[in-house]
Amino acid sequence: MKGTVYIYRKAHFSASHRLFDPALTDEQNAEIFGGCSNPNGHGHNYYIEVCVAGVTDPATGFVVDLKAVKQIMQERFLAMVDHKNLNADVDFLRGVNPTTENIAIAAFRQIAPHIPAGKLYSVRIYETENNYAEYRGDHS
Amino acid sequence: MKGTVYIYRKAHFSASHRLFDPALTDEQNAEIFGGCSNPNGHGHNYYIEVCVAGVTDPATGFVVDLKAVKQIMQERFLAMVDHKNLNADVDFLRGVNPTTENIAIAAFRQIAPHIPAGKLYSVRIYETENNYAEYRGDHS
Amino acid sequence: MKGTVYIYRKAHFSASHRLFDPALTDEQNAEIFGGCSNPNGHGHNYYIEVCVAGVTDPATGFVVDLKAVKQIMQERFLAMVDHKNLNADVDFLRGVNPTTENIAIAAFRQIAPHIPAGKLYSVRIYETENNYAEYRGDHS
Amino acid sequence: MKGTVYIYRKAHFSASHRLFDPALTDEQNAEIFGGCSNPNGHGHNYYIEVCVAGVTDPATGFVVDLKAVKQIMQERFLAMVDHKNLNADVDFLRGVNPTTENIAIAAFRQIAPHIPAGKLYSVRIYETENNYAEYRGDHS
Amino acid sequence: MKGTVYIYRKAHFSASHRLFDPALTDEQNAEIFGGCSNPNGHGHNYYIEVCVAGVTDPATGFVVDLKAVKQIMQERFLAMVDHKNLNADVDFLRGVNPTTENIAIAAFRQIAPHIPAGKLYSVRIYETENNYAEYRGDHS
Amino acid sequence: MKGTVYIYRKAHFSASHRLFDPALTDEQNAEIFGGCSNPNGHGHNYYIEVCVAGVTDPATGFVVDLKAVKQIMQERFLAMVDHKNLNADVDFLRGVNPTTENIAIAAFRQIAPHIPAGKLYSVRIYETENNYAEYRGDHS
Repeated sequence: MKGTVYIYRKAHFSASHRLFDPALTDEQNAEIFGGCSNPNGHGHNYYIEVCVAGVTDPATGFVVDLKAVKQIMQERFLAMVDHKNLNADVDFLRGVNPTTENIAIAAFRQIAPHIPAGKLYSVRIYETENNYAEYRGDHS
Repeated sequence: MKGTVYIYRKAHFSASHRLFDPALTDEQNAEIFGGCSNPNGHGHNYYIEVCVAGVTDPATGFVVDLKAVKQIMQERFLAMVDHKNLNADVDFLRGVNPTTENIAIAAFRQIAPHIPAGKLYSVRIYETENNYAEYRGDHS
Repeated sequence: MKGTVYIYRKAHFSASHRLFDPALTDEQNAEIFGGCSNPNGHGHNYYIEVCVAGVTDPATGFVVDLKAVKQIMQERFLAMVDHKNLNADVDFLRGVNPTTENIAIAAFRQIAPHIPAGKLYSVRIYETENNYAEYRGDHS
Repeated sequence: MKGTVYIYRKAHFSASHRLFDPALTDEQNAEIFGGCSNPNGHGHNYYIEVCVAGVTDPATGFVVDLKAVKQIMQERFLAMVDHKNLNADVDFLRGVNPTTENIAIAAFRQIAPHIPAGKLYSVRIYETENNYAEYRGDHS
Repeated sequence: MKGTVYIYRKAHFSASHRLFDPALTDEQNAEIFGGCSNPNGHGHNYYIEVCVAGVTDPATGFVVDLKAVKQIMQERFLAMVDHKNLNADVDFLRGVNPTTENIAIAAFRQIAPHIPAGKLYSVRIYETENNYAEYRGDHS
Repeated sequence: MKGTVYIYRKAHFSASHRLFDPALTDEQNAEIFGGCSNPNGHGHNYYIEVCVAGVTDPATGFVVDLKAVKQIMQERFLAMVDHKNLNADVDFLRGVNPTTENIAIAAFRQIAPHIPAGKLYSVRIYETENNYAEYRGDHS
């Protein structure tokens, strides 16, 4: 769309996880997932960054009201994952290996229905400063 | 273009702003813009990040001389906004609500005429570490 | 005190300010305070960092409950300065030039009475990443 | 000591923890420790920062060989906590509530015996960018 | 590709460089490259950020095993450039002016053959926090 | 002094260096200094952070005019080290191994004579985000 502006909002959450495939032994998991398969889990200060794209509203100068985006991120994602164990405590990650990739996909699907259609451009999950994943939706 | 390189330059400025629609009352503005509509204004340490895209010059190894980009950013944007009030002091924001989106659009239009045609790829304005907007020009 | 632990909590606020001495002309103020004396003000994303020092409580492992410190910082300082004009909107800065130094002194005095006696070690105010001030109380 | 130089080395680790007092109920723990007492734990990207103080060696220009400090931090601390559960997996935290304060004390005691006597000045543990604790030894 | 996830890995290296065109005089080089043409060189803490794009493996939840990417970055790039002089010590930069642009192109070409075909999306080189370049391959 | 405020100013420079003891062989230097003794040098994005301590001036609210400190840092230190080789190009480091410690000591001595007597509290040199050194003067 001509004159598209991309607007970003970032937020923080703390969570623990363990990466493993239940079909494999602890030894096989350790070989594939390294320290990330430690049976008692470990954790991260994660960041989520949501990008909404569109043209600005002439009256407000906003693509979207970021206060509303902040509230959606809080209610549909952060409230379920902050200070939680991603393997045990999160309904929308049930049965999913909580890799950075899968958290990004799940976060996109949690948030998209509450943003005006087609405007959610991407969701990034930072596991550390040095590792992160971005998802732009099931159709791109 | 084949072999495109994207080169980025970031710079800092401090400014104050107030978000409001002059057609509304203070109460209506407070409802839409929250604390950002405080009548005496508030402020930010903004960052601007300019991206220029193209192929490298075989002699210099540069897409563009970043020293020149730095000077254009200084003369066409930073000199007008640093240590200023974005509502009162900036000609190219006159009559515009100084949202992050509108600052990004205005910055792009200030800088584009001074960069070789078609090479200015994007301008980002960071209002805080957690909120920022990107504009890629009127035709994209 | 033997076995002292220093515990820190950082938080963010956005505010605008103008540095000037009302006894001087605009020209004299510009000479002393530079761009910071712009009559319409400018602004910053400030950070405040509070340090509390003491021995840990054997039951909780805490020097102090940081959730309580967070609430004191919110009620006694952030609520008065976030999204405000430090020259016009803040009672405890009335008649004070809002330099980083003076904001640090004022913040220390706002917070100290609500922390167990003698335990507030220092308050830092970051005006930008590159400029900040620390105050350790009127007696040190 | 005259001419003292303070030299710092920072490193990262990921771990999970749960704050709770085993003498209390889950409800009482939730009241004191908030989200940090979630029974399945949560986690952080922690940083440890070690400071060694002394005069420089005239031949090398070093207070201490930071490569040696890096190795001590690795062998005596990081190897035991990185990608671990601080409640279940770490011998030197057995029976201790893994608050930031207690991790800093434990890290100091793990590292001090391997640094030339009296030269370990402080250990900081960053739980997040906004919360951290510093310990300077049992005698200060 | 539908359902593409972009996964990023960042790493650090320290190196020195001098920018200059051997066909020019020192004075001409100083005019074009400024302080960067100082004959004895200068240096940077560079960062490289590699992005791999693809769909996730249903068993592991990975687009790619980042431990493998980390090892490829180490063996094919970091081992040759960390703590080196980019003009004198690096075979794959022989005869190339070590601008940020050219380092990004060279890093992409070093790493691409070791990543599953078509999956290496981009390589970024950060020369400083404020200057960086991105390359997405010879065909885009 | 009662009511002391500590005020900090940070600035950036890029430089290359090689750590070595001229009395030793390349092999011996490699053993002591590791990659830092690479004969062609390597480099860093250094930061210098200057702290001045004192009481505030009642008229200005300043401990010291940071614009003046900025100029002293520029003229007495940054102009000599930015975009330079610390082994070859810097008079005040002649004959000194350019470790982080020694750069901090030299920077303190360069700047102290130009700050009101006794007010320069400390100088920090950051070699990377993870390694830095602080000096507080020859008498402390």
